[in-house]
Amino acid sequence: MRIECIAIGTELLTTRRLDTNSVWIAERLSELGLDLSMKTAVGDDREILARVFREAMGRSDLILTTGGLGPTFDDFTKEVCAEVLGVPLVEDPRCRADIQAFYDARKRVPPPANFKQAAIPEGAEALRNPVGTAPGVYWQNPPGHPGMRILMFPGVPREMKRMWTDHALPRLRTLAGRPVHTLRMVVAGVPESTLDQRIQEVRERHGHLDWTILASLTQVELLARGEDPAALERACADFTPLLGEDLACTGTGNLEDAVLDLLKARGESLAVAESMTGGLLAARLTAIPGASQAFLGGATVYSMGAKVALLGLDPERLAVEGTVSEATSRRLAEAVRAKLGATWGLAVTGNAGPGAEGDAPLGTVFLAVAGPKGTVSRGLTLPGDRADVQLRATAGALDLLRRGINLDRKY
Amino acid sequence: MRIECIAIGTELLTTRRLDTNSVWIAERLSELGLDLSMKTAVGDDREILARVFREAMGRSDLILTTGGLGPTFDDFTKEVCAEVLGVPLVEDPRCRADIQAFYDARKRVPPPANFKQAAIPEGAEALRNPVGTAPGVYWQNPPGHPGMRILMFPGVPREMKRMWTDHALPRLRTLAGRPVHTLRMVVAGVPESTLDQRIQEVRERHGHLDWTILASLTQVELLARGEDPAALERACADFTPLLGEDLACTGTGNLEDAVLDLLKARGESLAVAESMTGGLLAARLTAIPGASQAFLGGATVYSMGAKVALLGLDPERLAVEGTVSEATSRRLAEAVRAKLGATWGLAVTGNAGPGAEGDAPLGTVFLAVAGPKGTVSRGLTLPGDRADVQLRATAGALDLLRRGINLDRKY
Repeated sequence: MRIECIAIGTELLTTRRLDTNSVWIAERLSELGLDLSMKTAVGDDREILARVFREAMGRSDLILTTGGLGPTFDDFTKEVCAEVLGVPLVEDPRCRADIQAFYDARKRVPPPANFKQAAIPEGAEALRNPVGTAPGVYWQNPPGHPGMRILMFPGVPREMKRMWTDHALPRLRTLAGRPVHTLRMVVAGVPESTLDQRIQEVRERHGHLDWTILASLTQVELLARGEDPAALERACADFTPLLGEDLACTGTGNLEDAVLDLLKARGESLAVAESMTGGLLAARLTAIPGASQAFLGGATVYSMGAKVALLGLDPERLAVEGTVSEATSRRLAEAVRAKLGATWGLAVTGNAGPGAEGDAPLGTVFLAVAGPKGTVSRGLTLPGDRADVQLRATAGALDLLRRGINLDRKY
Repeated sequence: MRIECIAIGTELLTTRRLDTNSVWIAERLSELGLDLSMKTAVGDDREILARVFREAMGRSDLILTTGGLGPTFDDFTKEVCAEVLGVPLVEDPRCRADIQAFYDARKRVPPPANFKQAAIPEGAEALRNPVGTAPGVYWQNPPGHPGMRILMFPGVPREMKRMWTDHALPRLRTLAGRPVHTLRMVVAGVPESTLDQRIQEVRERHGHLDWTILASLTQVELLARGEDPAALERACADFTPLLGEDLACTGTGNLEDAVLDLLKARGESLAVAESMTGGLLAARLTAIPGASQAFLGGATVYSMGAKVALLGLDPERLAVEGTVSEATSRRLAEAVRAKLGATWGLAVTGNAGPGAEGDAPLGTVFLAVAGPKGTVSRGLTLPGDRADVQLRATAGALDLLRRGINLDRKY
C-alpha cells in the first residue's frame, strides 16, 4: 500500500516554516506498521494543487492532506480535490451546527464566510473538529478510484492531532499491516563511520531486520525494525556486548535521558558549570520532565567575573591558567560540585567563536567531571560553526559524565 | 518560472529527520527574487523517484534535488534521472581524480564503489565538491526539455551549501527576477490576532506589498516583500509609530538580538537567574555571537538549595514565600544582579510541569527585572506543554527586560 502526505500552505515553502505535521503522521503510521512513501508541500496555488492531487491519485492508495481547510480565500483543499474528481461540495448540516456552536460558546457571531468550512465533497464523510472550526474529510472509494482513501486534516497541529486520534485512527486500523517493532540503540562518543564499520558483521548477521543509522551532532542512533519481537531481542543481545560502554541507552530516550536515568537510579545528583555552552547543557537536561530529581542547577559563568562571583574561583589563578584551559575546567567542576553539594560536578569551557579567545582557536573545548573519587578532564577540538560546537560540547560533557558514572572507577 | 525541490532519502520520511536543505534553498532563492512552487521528499525507491522526476519535468523549469549522490547501493539519483531522460552515465575524469585526491589527502585507499560517484549523466556538467566525495550535477536543456535546468546536490547540508555558493549561484543569477526586498518587523509581547487587527488598516494602505504574519512561541514577525525599496521604507515609517514599543526590532534579528543590541548600545550588562527555564534563557542569549559583550552569566537555580548556595537567598524566607512566587522572582533578579555586578538582573520562576509545583498550576510563571532604578515583576499563566511553557517564559522575560531598558523609567 502506498501512502503519501500533502501539506498545503505557501508558508511551508518559505524559509520560516517546516511541515512538522507529516513527521508526526509518519510516527503514527509507523505504529500501525505502515510507511509513508513520499510527501509533498505545495503553496496556496489551485493549479499546482490540482496537479499534485491528480498525480497522487495515480500513485497512492492513501492520501493524507494537511492545511487549506480554513475559511479564507486561500483555503481551497476540499474544492480542488472535489474538482479533480468531478464532484460538487455540499454543506454538512452537522458541521454547520458545530461552527455555530463554536462561536456561540465564545459569545461571538460567526462571519458568514466561516460556514464555507461546512462544505464537504459529495460522497465523502465529514470529520468533526472538536477543537476548531474546520472539519476534516474522510473519503473512501472516491469516483474512479476504488480502494483509495483520502483524508484531509486542518494544518493547525493541535487540531490535526486531535482529529487523527478521534477519527483517522479508528478508520485506518483495518489497513494496518503486521505491527512493526523497533529496536533503538543510542550510541555516544563514537563517530558514525567508526560505528558503522564496527557493527557491520553483526548487522549483516541480523540482515533480515531493516537497519538504519542516524547520526546527529550529539549521538548516533542505530535502528532495527522487524515484525518479530524475538528477532529484535536477539539483535539487542548481540549488540549490547559489541557496543559496550558506548551504548548510552535503548528505547526512546536520548543521551541526556540516559544520564538522568543513571543518576536517579543511583540516588545521585548533578550540578553544572558552563562557560562556552552558556546554559545549553543545563537547558538540555531541564527539557526533560522530572530532571529536578537529579539536577540541582548550575552556574553559567560566561564572563571571568561570573567564575569568580558565582563559583569562587581565584581571579589571579584564573588569569594565569586562562579561562579556556583544562585546569580551569577542573576547577569549575570541583567548585560547582562543592557549592551545590552535588554528587557530580560537570564543567565546560572552550571557544565556540566567532573569533579566537586568547590562544584557544575556535572549537577548542575542555570538559571536566568532578565526582566522589576525584576529577577527570578531557580536551577536544570540535568541528562546525558556533551552534555546532556548543551542541557537540554539551554532548561531549554528558558522555564524559555518563562514562564516569558507569565506570565509577577513579572518580 | 516554476521551481521545485526534491529531497531524496528514506530517512526524510521517518520521524527522525526533516528536510532542512529545502528551507535553506528557499532562502537563497528568495534572495534572487525567485520562489519555490513546491517541494517533495521521497525515499530511496527507484520506481517512485522515477515517477517524481517525470512529474517534475512536466511541471517545473528548474528542478533542485538533494541526496542520493553517494557511493552506496541506495544512492541512485543520477541514475534514475538519466534513465528517465534516456541518457547514459559517463565517468567524469576530473571527478574521479577529485575522489582519489580526497582519499590520498587522508592517507586512505578509496573503496572501488566510491568511484561510482564520478559518473555523470551524458550532456550534464559535473559540479565539483570541495568538501566531500560526491560531485553534484548541473544539467541545462536535458533531452526533450529545452529551457529546463536540473541541479543535483549531495544531501549533506555542509556540502550542499558550499556547492550552492560555488556552483549554483553563478549559474542561477541569470534567472533571477527583479530583486525582491523584504521589510521584517519583529513584534514581542502581543498575540498574533491582536496584532493582525491593529495593523489591518495600515497594511491595507500598503496593499501593493506582499504581506505575511508569522507567529512563533517567542515573537510575531511581520513581513512585507516588494520590488520597490522606497515602498518598503514608506511602510516601515507608517508601522514604526503604530507598533510603538511592541516593535522589538527590524531586520534579520530576533527578540534576543534586540535585547543584546540594546544593552551593547548602552554599554550595559545582564545577568540571569533561572529556575523553571533551567538554562534556556541563558542558552538563547549565548547562541548569539558576541553575546559576551553584554551577557555576564547567570545561575540556574533549579533546586531550592541552588537558590541558597549560588545566590544567597534566605532558605527560611524561601520556604515561606515559595519557590514559585513573585516575591522569589524579585529576590532572584536582585540577587543575581548584585552577585555579578550587572546593570540588569533578570529572573524566571514558575512551573513548566509535568505536575503542579506546590500551589502553582502548570504554566504559572513569575518574571522579574532588577535594574538601576528598582525592580519590576510580572505574573503570567502560559499555555502549552513543558517545552512551550519554558520557551514562552524566556520570551516573556526578554520582553520584560527590553521594555524596561527602553522605558528606563522606574528601573
